[in-house]
Amino acid sequence: MSAITPAVAAALLARVRERRPLIHHITNIVTANDVAAVTLALGASPVMAHAPQEVEEMVASAGALALNIGTPTVHSFEAMLLAGHRANAAGIPIVLDPVGVGATAFRTTQALRLLAELRIACVRGNAGEIAALAGQAGGVRGVDATGRIEEVDRLAQELAGRTHAIVAATGPVDVLTDGARVLRIENGHPLLAQITGSGCMATAAVAAFIAVESDYLGAATGGLVCFEIAAELGAEPAEGPGTFRPALLDALAALDGLTVMGRARIRK
Amino acid sequence: MSAITPAVAAALLARVRERRPLIHHITNIVTANDVAAVTLALGASPVMAHAPQEVEEMVASAGALALNIGTPTVHSFEAMLLAGHRANAAGIPIVLDPVGVGATAFRTTQALRLLAELRIACVRGNAGEIAALAGQAGGVRGVDATGRIEEVDRLAQELAGRTHAIVAATGPVDVLTDGARVLRIENGHPLLAQITGSGCMATAAVAAFIAVESDYLGAATGGLVCFEIAAELGAEPAEGPGTFRPALLDALAALDGLTVMGRARIRK
Amino acid sequence: MSAITPAVAAALLARVRERRPLIHHITNIVTANDVAAVTLALGASPVMAHAPQEVEEMVASAGALALNIGTPTVHSFEAMLLAGHRANAAGIPIVLDPVGVGATAFRTTQALRLLAELRIACVRGNAGEIAALAGQAGGVRGVDATGRIEEVDRLAQELAGRTHAIVAATGPVDVLTDGARVLRIENGHPLLAQITGSGCMATAAVAAFIAVESDYLGAATGGLVCFEIAAELGAEPAEGPGTFRPALLDALAALDGLTVMGRARIRK
Repeated sequence: MSAITPAVAAALLARVRERRPLIHHITNIVTANDVAAVTLALGASPVMAHAPQEVEEMVASAGALALNIGTPTVHSFEAMLLAGHRANAAGIPIVLDPVGVGATAFRTTQALRLLAELRIACVRGNAGEIAALAGQAGGVRGVDATGRIEEVDRLAQELAGRTHAIVAATGPVDVLTDGARVLRIENGHPLLAQITGSGCMATAAVAAFIAVESDYLGAATGGLVCFEIAAELGAEPAEGPGTFRPALLDALAALDGLTVMGRARIRK
Repeated sequence: MSAITPAVAAALLARVRERRPLIHHITNIVTANDVAAVTLALGASPVMAHAPQEVEEMVASAGALALNIGTPTVHSFEAMLLAGHRANAAGIPIVLDPVGVGATAFRTTQALRLLAELRIACVRGNAGEIAALAGQAGGVRGVDATGRIEEVDRLAQELAGRTHAIVAATGPVDVLTDGARVLRIENGHPLLAQITGSGCMATAAVAAFIAVESDYLGAATGGLVCFEIAAELGAEPAEGPGTFRPALLDALAALDGLTVMGRARIRK
Repeated sequence: MSAITPAVAAALLARVRERRPLIHHITNIVTANDVAAVTLALGASPVMAHAPQEVEEMVASAGALALNIGTPTVHSFEAMLLAGHRANAAGIPIVLDPVGVGATAFRTTQALRLLAELRIACVRGNAGEIAALAGQAGGVRGVDATGRIEEVDRLAQELAGRTHAIVAATGPVDVLTDGARVLRIENGHPLLAQITGSGCMATAAVAAFIAVESDYLGAATGGLVCFEIAAELGAEPAEGPGTFRPALLDALAALDGLTVMGRARIRK
């Protein structure tokens, strides 16, 4: 397995643009448009479908499946399981975004069920979600009483080790791990925390990259690095969170490999 | 009860930003992103959840519950009632946005049911919606044959008196009443009528303020004043309705108390 | 039937703005906001409703019904049929956007069912969707093994002839036909292919125009020409796909008849 460098991230971006993989998203009603927009801006092709009657057939022609539980229902979880089993059978990687896990027993139970029944290639959440998922799964508390996240690294590694998924906990500094290796990404911009959908968009970037690269840790790193560099560039013309979103999409569509190599801050 | 002044609106904005209340939205598929964006830009924290399996637990940790019937289904009304009863039991204020009430018997019946079964802190609609709701509830016609709104003040007061909710009828001039007091807000901009979601966004602003202030008339006034001043400021760089939306969000995120005090036009 | 000229397109735009028709959309969770925004920017009035309990009553007061199968479910198809039958009974024109038809048996079967059971005024899709719909319906393959579209003209004409709907296959050059006449529109901009929702927005433009003109071929042409000219104008200030969307909406709202007459490229 080769080292995960800025040059690898740049090469993967070129590969996404060349292959234009179809990404099947089962997502939420709040950020579906953002998710589609990021997928397109990276050069991949989004399709949204959540009817149980069609998700298995739809995912069969996709390069990756992205499951986002932002506004979940019993029906969307049913669709996620159907699509997920088919994806697993066909070797199509799955990215899981456990939005709000820990907030309700319903979300937590269903997210854990997805993790237990499906082989997930990558879990992408914020530090709190990853901690909640790891903690709940292991019967421990991942978020302390003050809301501060304790030991994200350890919890992410534990979750990765148990599920065999890459775990990506994003925040001011992202932590990515396959259970053994741990990487950090120091790109991004504070405006990401001020817009809705930035987490969902980061997950979409991971899904686009994971569709074209079987080293999932490298793919997740590449997707997040590119997304977060675009955020840095998009923040320059932005006057606030409203103009940041379109500027971020512009920057993502215009992103080139040299810029990625010049700006990526991947640390071990 | 203290007077509702521009200084109060400014103080409430500061309080929203300090406390960052969680606002639980059960909303529609058209403007969910706008609603989340306004909530975040004001400094509050949005969460969307509409599965009957989780709404009661979700609302329990929220500072306010916002119910928007823009694209209603029997399932969303069921979720609204479940969440609403829990909110009432816990003393969490509820804001109702009766989108399109009067357009179909289904919407009208269900909106009246929400009003009858739940204790609503504030109803925020356009003049036509408030008139329809008041008229339907009282068995009279609130909208005359020419579409002009007759006697919004009286209908809003009647509705407020009967439901014990603050009623806010927004438009070029907003009318707010608790049944006894009547206030008017003369802020805003014509571009608000040219974008989709401006009503839903106004409701989101009310919900963020109502989460931090138990004088609901003051809170609703503060939320609407801040939102509408941001619309005035956002209209300056806007080239039309498309660029107005991001500029409005920028202005909302940058809004400070001095600007609110300088521009608020609250009349009795 | 008069010739379909740029002056006709300009006159229809003026008529949309004067009459402000209500357009009932049963649409998808990804682009619902875009669809509403385009409808408003053209001067029409959007309403979204998909509950079986209210769609028949809602459509009865609309000037047109737009059915978009972007994220279909059995429930949305049920609502589309209910609304569609009522629209047919009342003489209200229906526009169908068969998003992703051909991708799954579910979408294809249901789209064909809508076409078979309802009298559709206009089908608006991309060339691949029109080819799939025509091919599936006729038992032939519309998309060859390389993904290249063969004989869009013939397939569109065949589909129009069989269904008595206007068929509009949009792309770099649009093909519109009523089965006998064939028109081409050479307006638009490559950025349309880089944003999500451009097809859904084009359908919304067609629906707004079809609500005010019973020559559906002329109406569909007028709607597409105006939308695509706005895309050309919106591309000028845009820095990429992110800023293109708001600029497109600005341009659509500001579009005037003289600009339409000067820029429309309608060919026979």
